[in-house]
Amino acid sequence: MQNDTQGFEVITPSAPLNINTHGGRAKCLQRLIRLDMPVPRTVALSFQTVHEIAEGHLPDTAAIMAGFGDAPIVSVRPSSEDPDWGGPGAILNIGMNDLRHAELCAEHGEAVADALYLRFIQAYAVHVARLDADVFDVINPEDDGALRDVLNAYEDETDESFPQDPAEQLAQVLRSMARAWEGTTARLLRQAKGAPVDAGLGLVVQEMALGLGAGECGSGVIQFIDETTGQKKIRGRYLSQSQGRDALTEGEGALYLTRDPRGPSMEETCASSFETLIRYGDATRQRLREEMEIEFTVVDGGLRILDAVRVPRTARAGVRVAVQLANDKIISREEALMRVEPRALTELLHKQVDPDGDHPTILQGIAASPGAAQGRIVFSATAAQASAAREEACVLVRRETAPEDIRGMHAANAVLTERGGMSSHAAVIARGLGLPCIVGANEMRLKSKDNTLKLPDGRILREGDMITVDGATGRVLAGAAPLLEPALDEVFQALLQWADDVRDIGVRANADTPADAVIARRFMAQGIGLCRTEHMFFENDRLTVMREMIFADTREDRAAALERLLPMQRADFTALFDIMQGQPVCIRLFDPPLHEFLPHSREGMRELAGALDLPMSQVTRRIEALQEFNPMLGMRGVRLGVTVPEIYEMQARAIFEATIDASENGDPIVPEIMIPLVSAKREVELIKTRIDAIASEVKTLRNAEFTYRLGVMVETPRAALRAEEIAPHTSFLSFGTNDLTQMTYGLSRDDAGRFMGDYVRQGVFAEDPFHMLDIDGVGELLTIGAERGRAANDEVTLSICGEHGGNPESIAFCRKAGFDYVSCSPFRVPVAKLAAAQLRLIDDGVQ
Amino acid sequence: MQNDTQGFEVITPSAPLNINTHGGRAKCLQRLIRLDMPVPRTVALSFQTVHEIAEGHLPDTAAIMAGFGDAPIVSVRPSSEDPDWGGPGAILNIGMNDLRHAELCAEHGEAVADALYLRFIQAYAVHVARLDADVFDVINPEDDGALRDVLNAYEDETDESFPQDPAEQLAQVLRSMARAWEGTTARLLRQAKGAPVDAGLGLVVQEMALGLGAGECGSGVIQFIDETTGQKKIRGRYLSQSQGRDALTEGEGALYLTRDPRGPSMEETCASSFETLIRYGDATRQRLREEMEIEFTVVDGGLRILDAVRVPRTARAGVRVAVQLANDKIISREEALMRVEPRALTELLHKQVDPDGDHPTILQGIAASPGAAQGRIVFSATAAQASAAREEACVLVRRETAPEDIRGMHAANAVLTERGGMSSHAAVIARGLGLPCIVGANEMRLKSKDNTLKLPDGRILREGDMITVDGATGRVLAGAAPLLEPALDEVFQALLQWADDVRDIGVRANADTPADAVIARRFMAQGIGLCRTEHMFFENDRLTVMREMIFADTREDRAAALERLLPMQRADFTALFDIMQGQPVCIRLFDPPLHEFLPHSREGMRELAGALDLPMSQVTRRIEALQEFNPMLGMRGVRLGVTVPEIYEMQARAIFEATIDASENGDPIVPEIMIPLVSAKREVELIKTRIDAIASEVKTLRNAEFTYRLGVMVETPRAALRAEEIAPHTSFLSFGTNDLTQMTYGLSRDDAGRFMGDYVRQGVFAEDPFHMLDIDGVGELLTIGAERGRAANDEVTLSICGEHGGNPESIAFCRKAGFDYVSCSPFRVPVAKLAAAQLRLIDDGVQ
Repeated sequence: MQNDTQGFEVITPSAPLNINTHGGRAKCLQRLIRLDMPVPRTVALSFQTVHEIAEGHLPDTAAIMAGFGDAPIVSVRPSSEDPDWGGPGAILNIGMNDLRHAELCAEHGEAVADALYLRFIQAYAVHVARLDADVFDVINPEDDGALRDVLNAYEDETDESFPQDPAEQLAQVLRSMARAWEGTTARLLRQAKGAPVDAGLGLVVQEMALGLGAGECGSGVIQFIDETTGQKKIRGRYLSQSQGRDALTEGEGALYLTRDPRGPSMEETCASSFETLIRYGDATRQRLREEMEIEFTVVDGGLRILDAVRVPRTARAGVRVAVQLANDKIISREEALMRVEPRALTELLHKQVDPDGDHPTILQGIAASPGAAQGRIVFSATAAQASAAREEACVLVRRETAPEDIRGMHAANAVLTERGGMSSHAAVIARGLGLPCIVGANEMRLKSKDNTLKLPDGRILREGDMITVDGATGRVLAGAAPLLEPALDEVFQALLQWADDVRDIGVRANADTPADAVIARRFMAQGIGLCRTEHMFFENDRLTVMREMIFADTREDRAAALERLLPMQRADFTALFDIMQGQPVCIRLFDPPLHEFLPHSREGMRELAGALDLPMSQVTRRIEALQEFNPMLGMRGVRLGVTVPEIYEMQARAIFEATIDASENGDPIVPEIMIPLVSAKREVELIKTRIDAIASEVKTLRNAEFTYRLGVMVETPRAALRAEEIAPHTSFLSFGTNDLTQMTYGLSRDDAGRFMGDYVRQGVFAEDPFHMLDIDGVGELLTIGAERGRAANDEVTLSICGEHGGNPESIAFCRKAGFDYVSCSPFRVPVAKLAAAQLRLIDDGVQ
Repeated sequence: MQNDTQGFEVITPSAPLNINTHGGRAKCLQRLIRLDMPVPRTVALSFQTVHEIAEGHLPDTAAIMAGFGDAPIVSVRPSSEDPDWGGPGAILNIGMNDLRHAELCAEHGEAVADALYLRFIQAYAVHVARLDADVFDVINPEDDGALRDVLNAYEDETDESFPQDPAEQLAQVLRSMARAWEGTTARLLRQAKGAPVDAGLGLVVQEMALGLGAGECGSGVIQFIDETTGQKKIRGRYLSQSQGRDALTEGEGALYLTRDPRGPSMEETCASSFETLIRYGDATRQRLREEMEIEFTVVDGGLRILDAVRVPRTARAGVRVAVQLANDKIISREEALMRVEPRALTELLHKQVDPDGDHPTILQGIAASPGAAQGRIVFSATAAQASAAREEACVLVRRETAPEDIRGMHAANAVLTERGGMSSHAAVIARGLGLPCIVGANEMRLKSKDNTLKLPDGRILREGDMITVDGATGRVLAGAAPLLEPALDEVFQALLQWADDVRDIGVRANADTPADAVIARRFMAQGIGLCRTEHMFFENDRLTVMREMIFADTREDRAAALERLLPMQRADFTALFDIMQGQPVCIRLFDPPLHEFLPHSREGMRELAGALDLPMSQVTRRIEALQEFNPMLGMRGVRLGVTVPEIYEMQARAIFEATIDASENGDPIVPEIMIPLVSAKREVELIKTRIDAIASEVKTLRNAEFTYRLGVMVETPRAALRAEEIAPHTSFLSFGTNDLTQMTYGLSRDDAGRFMGDYVRQGVFAEDPFHMLDIDGVGELLTIGAERGRAANDEVTLSICGEHGGNPESIAFCRKAGFDYVSCSPFRVPVAKLAAAQLRLIDDGVQ
């Protein structure tokens, strides 16, 4: 009986094995043994033992081998804490030597004996003795004299004959595996996958079930789900007279497992082993509570189970497996929630490029908004709209996008830009619209003059050419690649519902349009946390009126122009209220600088001069006067509200009138009005006074009652620092983490693209702060703002509504800081809900 | 004997009078009495008494009048805590009635009696009875029957005869003065001058010394300094047979005080009274410790002293008086320091428009940089340089200035821009250069095409027209107005030296050029706190090399271009080190975005393409690629340092080589190198490693030793918040309050001009935060940064180097927060030093 003081442990149902001392494979094998499966004798070496081996202290390998009988033939496999961390490959047939070869020749014939010995010598030469793989791999095991050739080659390369002592063979194998694990490359690779610095390697030494020899012998692999969809389905292969995973890699001659018209199946040829495997599959699912892939060997018609690993799977398969396990009461709903990585949900919400397709990649950019779409290339927003009018799918290709392009983006099926990063205009808007988007594809050359796009390989694409945009990977494919549909099935809905039952922080959606709002409802968002109103002024008929307003010289003229926008705005809000059916809708008042609404080109200015019947000089003068050095830090948001009060007044009126209309149709509405870019208390007081006055006026005129909530978007560091004096005037504080990040870092998200890559690579920033909330800096301002806001007004609702809203890290932060809800792009709502549920479960001790 | 329970108090040497109960005039009169001056009997009414009078509770005016004898004639004058707060005018000759008139006719003749009675009736009618001034003022006292006309007019207007009871007269006078003080207009006016809401008014009732009658009678005013220069000089007028301040207002017949070729003098005609006055002047200066203006009356050859007030004076006179009083040991140096308003010093540092000149104002803008200058109009930087080359003074007139204009600004004598506010580029640079500057003169119309400037009155000015710019008031004057020279005399230097002896916080200057550095030395700045290096790259020969560097495609080509800039940079630093003679010089590494160095116009681009021998398309493409949406938040500062390391490497090399060179010539130099726009610790680590390497290299190559200090410019909110992890890597943290304010508010100083006026007027911001440090918001970040920086590194030097550095409010803040020094424009150094000294003295209890 060996014991741990010798550094190894025979795996028995009661052996003291743990994942964090002996690794996952050792533990799993013990579980299989406990399920009474026919697992060959296996010895486990602990992390500690393997670490000592690497340092030169070998265990008694003769004693280990002795445990396997007089003529031991064994395999060694790695057993780390997490199979993703990698590790050395398995080595089979240790113990083969000239003597065993001769015995096996007698027992099973020369072919079998040669194959077993050859396999071992090749693996040993390359992986243990570190000889040149080219020398050994070229030798075909089926050639006559192959074994002799290999033995000669070994002697030539080493000046020694091949080691014959099984204990010595094992010692060398163990040492080489232990050292490989501690090598620099392996360490860096596993650390990149999240392994700790001191991650250990265990090893398992298992008696070989040969898979070769008399009677039905062979090896195979079986699993019980489709790894792409998660649907129940038996998949795998079996190959007679083979070892290890040969059935998968050497397809020729392998059998299907279940009956199949394409060829013979194990179900037919080894019916009883097959049935046993089905039973084992069920047992592992029930008792290991996971979908496992089982590695087995048939020895003279009898089944051996060598190993079992979790089936690798796509995100959508992962969701289905977790939900099915819970529905079958094998795991709890809480555990099902914990098993799905929130970010993986994104994959389910969008079409995907079918991984089985073979359309070539023609361009690579930054994957800025997930999903895949096909369409014909267009180079302008106008062309995109024309294309949409013809009901023809198109992809909008631009150097970069600007607010003027929004209508074109709405009309396009996907967006591709040459410039920009994850936080560029194109990326942010596309994510908001749920539109596949690739940005920063800077290897292409756009020639706007002749409407062509030059690919890195020199080919030219023109308007009308069909391409496929894969926003999940950043790849552009030639032509119309086949796509998989989104997976918003009952399984997905169930998971979302369970998350809703568990989580303790609200999740709303950022939604600017009825289309966004419909998506928000579909994902059961608890209202709209940020409705940006500026896009509403870009639609064709409105833009003209908007420009008239900008060119008006008196308060009266401005008000008259806005009067014409009022019914359109009212209709916008009524539509949103109707869709949201009484859920809260938080409307941000007009935010961008006015110059965004004016043309930039001479031609556009000439058109505008014509439309407004003004001299060209007056148009250019006004446009020049409105230009800004740093628009982000300029005359926008509440500053516009204070100095040009008519815009906010019109918007407030539209909101209140829509509130009355929508409340008559259905659930009563309590609109939320949010003031952007506040930096001083007095700004809030001024706007509040005016909006209160409009509310009274509308109530009187319409003879109706309603309530509304006024709040502040905290986007400047100063607003966070002064939250204590701002909060008493407001019902809510919603932190706009995009702008707050820009100002805290002094970094424009539109301009950061040029160096953000460099910065993250050099570790200057651990992450792109527009992508991942900067807890240290921006986070401190959120904490300060939240604490001071609450201290001054314990009723104040706290939330974040920036791009970060949907990130698990931000949600964790907001939960801790006592925020009431997060708001994110509609397509991030499921991610946010699941992340929130997991955080709650972790707090409750569910692992 | 009257006492305070009756609400009034006879002024005697021992009467219980205080400035804050009875006002300054009452207190001053008591002091004069204590100096044994012949002050007529005076009764003081306290603030409380006057307040009760306004509410209708009158004191016993009969009792007051009885104190002045059987036939009292008195005056009433206001006595508030601060004479600047205003108050009702004096009323003379109360007590005059028909009976007294008859008696005086008998005693002094009808002319005298009429004049006294008339003066009283006119004042009473207008100021007490509130009758129409037009009716009474037209009556000429010298006309026959004037007295009868006035009495009749009074009866006509009031249907009552003129009140004859002196007690009643006094009661009405007191009531009208008390009520005038509590009126809304008077209250708002004095609050605008800093008076508290409950500021009180005292009144003094004084026996009239008539100034009319037999023998030498008259009245006059005397002071002993020139109120413009502060030089000792007897000034004032005396008029026989007059009352009050008639000698000053009715010049005809008034005498000079001292012998004067232009006419007779009091020194000659009333030698003994004159001598007594000189003695009294000396006494007040010694005992009241101030330069006083004395109001006196001569009654039949005998002197009466009616009043004395502090001589109103210009800033330069104020400095001289304070220093002279201290030099004469009348006040301490500390008190002299406390007597000068720091901001007033600015006036002394620059030329001023002579207030006695009469050139017309043709345009008004924002006074952006003090001082006055004349010059011929130029409309471009090139023209300014050409003008300077001809040694012809010019004023640079632009819509606004950009970095490209800096050479032009250097060449100009003053700058005038149509756009911009106190924090615009033109304003900031001009203040830095000590150049008079007016910005935001938006009533002019610049036509750049035909190089003309249209004035609000329609007149056209052209290139070459002479104008005078008064940067202290924002006025532009036609032609060359006469100017006063700066007052940097021994008196000014003495005050500065005393401030240096007292203050406990360092004052350095922001200085970019040798010219700046010379000014910094002149004002004895303790080194340079901020030397911006970017302007050095704008000089003609350098700009070309700089552009070559920007267009270089490889690290080698960039380094080669920078290699050519190295000797020029080294010369820049050597010059600064030589001027500063061992004082610390803090050099900020290159900060602006590269696109600032590229041309904006097609023409400029074409020229550049020619100069670099590149196709135009490549030039425009690179320029486009470098464009930024928000340059303030873009690729500049340390971000450039991290991604294009060659620039900082060249600068570090230049600094170190200059250090060695300058240390060989004179005092050893310890240069300070400052990294701009830091937002993360790792940025500092990266730059520090590279600069340390350059230092070692230079030491080895030159076989020389030196030390240097590396620090961080804290300009982003994040750098302040994370000061704890940044400070251990740096020798100093210098807070750049300009950028920090921009980011804390989310407000670009270049774009804020358009609404800042509105915002301050509406009270949204109490002050322009670029002008006055925002203690609440930006200040909190300074405090956080300072505390955390010190906690992590108690050796770290703390300072501010933004535009705010010279403001007394910022200095107060920095002293409290434990900063080591402030750095400000060279011309603000004296202001900063004095403010710092005063803060120390206040802490020490000196008032």
